[in-house]
Amino acid sequence: MPKDERVTVSDVGERKLIQRFQQLITKSPDALLKGSEDAAAVEFEGQAIVFNTDMLVTSTDVLPGMTPEEISWKVGVMGLSDLAAKGAAPLGILVSFGFPEEIEKEYVEALVSGLNHVCRKHDTYYLGGDTNQCSELVINCAAIGTSPRGQLLHRSGAKPGDIIAVTGEFGYTGALFKIMLERYTTSKRLMKQIRSKALQPYARLKEGRALALTGVASASIDSSDGLAWSLHELALASQVGFRIDQLPIPQSCTKFAKQHKLDANDLALYGGEEFELVVTIPSSGWTKANQVVQKTRGQLVRIGTVTEDVEIILDIDGKERIIEPRGYEHFR
Amino acid sequence: MPKDERVTVSDVGERKLIQRFQQLITKSPDALLKGSEDAAAVEFEGQAIVFNTDMLVTSTDVLPGMTPEEISWKVGVMGLSDLAAKGAAPLGILVSFGFPEEIEKEYVEALVSGLNHVCRKHDTYYLGGDTNQCSELVINCAAIGTSPRGQLLHRSGAKPGDIIAVTGEFGYTGALFKIMLERYTTSKRLMKQIRSKALQPYARLKEGRALALTGVASASIDSSDGLAWSLHELALASQVGFRIDQLPIPQSCTKFAKQHKLDANDLALYGGEEFELVVTIPSSGWTKANQVVQKTRGQLVRIGTVTEDVEIILDIDGKERIIEPRGYEHFR
Repeated sequence: MPKDERVTVSDVGERKLIQRFQQLITKSPDALLKGSEDAAAVEFEGQAIVFNTDMLVTSTDVLPGMTPEEISWKVGVMGLSDLAAKGAAPLGILVSFGFPEEIEKEYVEALVSGLNHVCRKHDTYYLGGDTNQCSELVINCAAIGTSPRGQLLHRSGAKPGDIIAVTGEFGYTGALFKIMLERYTTSKRLMKQIRSKALQPYARLKEGRALALTGVASASIDSSDGLAWSLHELALASQVGFRIDQLPIPQSCTKFAKQHKLDANDLALYGGEEFELVVTIPSSGWTKANQVVQKTRGQLVRIGTVTEDVEIILDIDGKERIIEPRGYEHFR
Repeated sequence: MPKDERVTVSDVGERKLIQRFQQLITKSPDALLKGSEDAAAVEFEGQAIVFNTDMLVTSTDVLPGMTPEEISWKVGVMGLSDLAAKGAAPLGILVSFGFPEEIEKEYVEALVSGLNHVCRKHDTYYLGGDTNQCSELVINCAAIGTSPRGQLLHRSGAKPGDIIAVTGEFGYTGALFKIMLERYTTSKRLMKQIRSKALQPYARLKEGRALALTGVASASIDSSDGLAWSLHELALASQVGFRIDQLPIPQSCTKFAKQHKLDANDLALYGGEEFELVVTIPSSGWTKANQVVQKTRGQLVRIGTVTEDVEIILDIDGKERIIEPRGYEHFR
């Protein structure tokens, strides 16, 4: 074949590639989740076993200056957050490492201790794994959990009229990316606040579990690819749209945005890696949903409503605009 | 710290590194397997959920000339074989990819189809996964299975007097490594035989399951790190030794060894990646064990006996020698 006819993954892009994968794979008759989902779930003795796998690659997923403890935190939360989005209770994680041969023992020990730490902080366990040699540091997290079969949260199921809500604030990672990757400056104090919040998110396991057990959520996803992207995924799976009329943005982020004449809403929508849940709740269940989430010491913040019209609209301060399907995509 | 005081993973070696990991990790109260094992297992509603994670890295784990289909086969068998060693029934695998951005779409599709193929050939499913960008091709396989809790096979439990047996022949990969990595030559016919057998091993899921269900095996491990290494791991976990008095070596391998004045026993012992099970069976259960394994269309080949003396001895043709704890180790 002449060289110019070769099609690489960069030409295709990650999302189309994944769609192609789904055509090539034989579906399991025991699979409980169909189509694009945060995790796989398989029926076992009337229960659902939920699991997922997520790889962190240093050259694309690690910000300059991240400590090994921060890297491990991200790896653990990345895996556990997908269980949270399904409402599953975690049993633990398994981790495979690819280490460059010159990596220091002390650094590796910090990674391992960090993984143990993030698991314990989420009331779960680092159960074991695998080590390998690789040209760069690669860490794969496989997380496993369980759920009563009928209580699994799905991406599909949102109905026009439902409330759309999130479990926390958005904007920290958007701001941190500006600082770390585009060299935006800010005060030491603000920088410290943004950094610590962006690099130590929690997987919303308790919130997801509470919503699943109560059966009040009609759809759920985590926001690891950015709020905008998650809204689009949720809309696509449920064949609905959203009208977003408020966004919970922390003061430090609006302040940072003001300093640099950035739109704080953009920081919140297109940042990514926030690991909050984005859920839809029928209005009849809203009070109950709030009660059960607050009992976990979590919060549920209404950001808008589900619409029949499949567009995703940001409607804040009387200005309407389309929320674009932008988010981080590999090979692009 | 002065540079010469820095200790890298290469200085430590993979096995000591893993021992260090175990000290740093909080044990789960639900964990059903202790110490160094092929997989993790967690109790769930009276059952055992068994899972493991294995990473393949091109620069260290892929032989020159391997096709994408052969790479996928290896990845799948690597993961499923650890379930086999525990006697677990597979639910499926999840796969994370790290792709170099210049990798071709067609090659990636061959990898994905190959993973689907290896799963279907083992009566299980490729359930989903994750794609990422990486400086080299990395594939992580997380395999998941289940087992009635009391039937899990362990590495520990072998007793002096037990029979030690394997589920198939050894020597193909040892011979293939000589051909591919050390440029030993042989006839096209022999080369083809060795290559196809070495690159398309099966995970012994049915054999492991049959032994677990019957409760006749006292200990079990897979031979993915080489027969010699597996014997040492099994001996260590059970605090016993072995006297090996025969090895099932295929004719093509003894012929290849003769051509090059190599010891065929060495090819069988120190090759690695054979993915056969190595199990111990009390002599009272030997007939039963053979029956149940033969029913799966598998075989159980007696290779020796378990001894009180913790040494591992090869005793063939009237010549006794020690089987060394050699096998593939990363960073070495």
